Amino acid sequence: MTPSVPTLLVLDADPPPRLGRLTGRVRIVHTDAVGLAARLPAADVLLVWDFASHAVREAWPGEGPRPGWVHTASAGVDHLMCPELAASGTVVTNARGVFDAPVAEYVAALVLAIAKDLPRTLDLQRERTWRHREGRRVSGTRACVVGSGPIGRAIARTLKALGVTTALVGRVPRTGIHGPDDLDRLISRADWVIAAAPLTEQTYGMFDEHRFDVMQPSACFINVGRGGLVDEEALVRALDRRWIAAAALDVLATEPLPADSPLWEVPGLLVSPHMGGDTVGWRDELSTQFVALYERWAAGRSLLNVVDKKRGYVPGH
Amino acid sequence: MTPSVPTLLVLDADPPPRLGRLTGRVRIVHTDAVGLAARLPAADVLLVWDFASHAVREAWPGEGPRPGWVHTASAGVDHLMCPELAASGTVVTNARGVFDAPVAEYVAALVLAIAKDLPRTLDLQRERTWRHREGRRVSGTRACVVGSGPIGRAIARTLKALGVTTALVGRVPRTGIHGPDDLDRLISRADWVIAAAPLTEQTYGMFDEHRFDVMQPSACFINVGRGGLVDEEALVRALDRRWIAAAALDVLATEPLPADSPLWEVPGLLVSPHMGGDTVGWRDELSTQFVALYERWAAGRSLLNVVDKKRGYVPGH
Repeated sequence: MTPSVPTLLVLDADPPPRLGRLTGRVRIVHTDAVGLAARLPAADVLLVWDFASHAVREAWPGEGPRPGWVHTASAGVDHLMCPELAASGTVVTNARGVFDAPVAEYVAALVLAIAKDLPRTLDLQRERTWRHREGRRVSGTRACVVGSGPIGRAIARTLKALGVTTALVGRVPRTGIHGPDDLDRLISRADWVIAAAPLTEQTYGMFDEHRFDVMQPSACFINVGRGGLVDEEALVRALDRRWIAAAALDVLATEPLPADSPLWEVPGLLVSPHMGGDTVGWRDELSTQFVALYERWAAGRSLLNVVDKKRGYVPGH
Repeated sequence: MTPSVPTLLVLDADPPPRLGRLTGRVRIVHTDAVGLAARLPAADVLLVWDFASHAVREAWPGEGPRPGWVHTASAGVDHLMCPELAASGTVVTNARGVFDAPVAEYVAALVLAIAKDLPRTLDLQRERTWRHREGRRVSGTRACVVGSGPIGRAIARTLKALGVTTALVGRVPRTGIHGPDDLDRLISRADWVIAAAPLTEQTYGMFDEHRFDVMQPSACFINVGRGGLVDEEALVRALDRRWIAAAALDVLATEPLPADSPLWEVPGLLVSPHMGGDTVGWRDELSTQFVALYERWAAGRSLLNVVDKKRGYVPGH
């Protein structure tokens, strides 16, 4: 028997760059969401390059064999997980590491922009109006970062470098990381509350009316995790009632945010199009990371970045 | 002879806070620009609280005795220096230290906002448009900070904390600081060129057509020093011709910037109202600093933050 060339099924809109290194060693089949279900049974590996798609979650429960390995070019896996995939023997890996430093810089950009009142400065520039205001010092303020994975830890490191006293909250308390029992106490003291947790059954809607009520009127809330972490209506009410001072959402419950969403025009709310982790060269990095994992898989070595499918993220450090 | 109570003349629009500690120990006379010349001869000390005013430069050359000490609640002294004051025995002190960390944070805010394309994000939000873009990584970029005083050094420290390779340029080369001979070479490699120098005869108009020509097309120029450091027309042409990618001016040749200035609407140019160093509580800090200096002066001890009147700044570390 000649060993057959494995089939790599790629769910994509634009094809990934830099897969050339795999030429001759793998048969690459590209598919869109519509063609996914029909092609899944013949695939050995599924690369979820179009990480905004929910097609895997929908196509997975169908008939026939399933690939033994699914890799997603994203940190979160909520868009592809379903009970059938969780219960299967298929290994799921993610893009752990690629987004850490970029998201941390993005959070620093939002914190500093809000502290220095930059959005208002840009408004005043458009109005050709010179109006001096006082900014806030960032050094000496307190942040609570919710989510103790590599992204949350990178955010904490960057904020600490700016002189911000930063507490990390994770699912389980461990050295340097608070557990959920400390959450309300920490966010009640924080100047910056930053959501960077994976979206799981435990975290869905965790930033609700109660949480915004607990925060200080001067606090700012920033979400770079997943839109589903936040009760968006409760956030709008909290901003409206001045329970908190400002918010920035880089991730939203519905993406892309529809043009008729009221969220675009909430005073004190900055909306950005899920770009925090995406810096020039990121697609190359994601491809390079996948190729390295593929080479481990093809050599029969154990994979890295393996997601705990019950928990919905890569556990441990 | 009873020792007379010294007269403290305060040039202000809004009176400084926290001078209560001096009650009974000094006679405080407030003046505006118009009354300054008439009141100068009777003053022992002049506190230039209205640091945007050029009134001292105009009133100083008049008749009569002059105060032996002038303190300005600003880092720059260009607004008050004149040949007569420079040649006199009067000691000039400044607010060295108060603005260092705030200005450094402001520069970090501008660098990160530009790298993450935040101004465009705010434009798109106003248009209710979800358009994903790629940001730039700040870590790993290069900055050249021109001005090696405490503000320039604080900027360099903050940028380094964000992973930016940062070179400092000063008037004289010394350990860790480049001299003017290295300037063109350093700005030609920099992603961020940051002006934080005092305005002196040597620095006036130093950012001219030649300097912008030397910079990379991807470079961003930020001025938090003094407006006079920059040939603003050359900057506008450089942005227009894409010699550089973006610029941010927190200080301008004419302040407040008139509503009809073309600078408000130059694509790629962010204009802010000289607020980089001004954070909540800064007026208290400036007053507290002056009171501490006053107590040294009243006790006959040597003053701190003494400006080299020929050079136009406080020399040394």
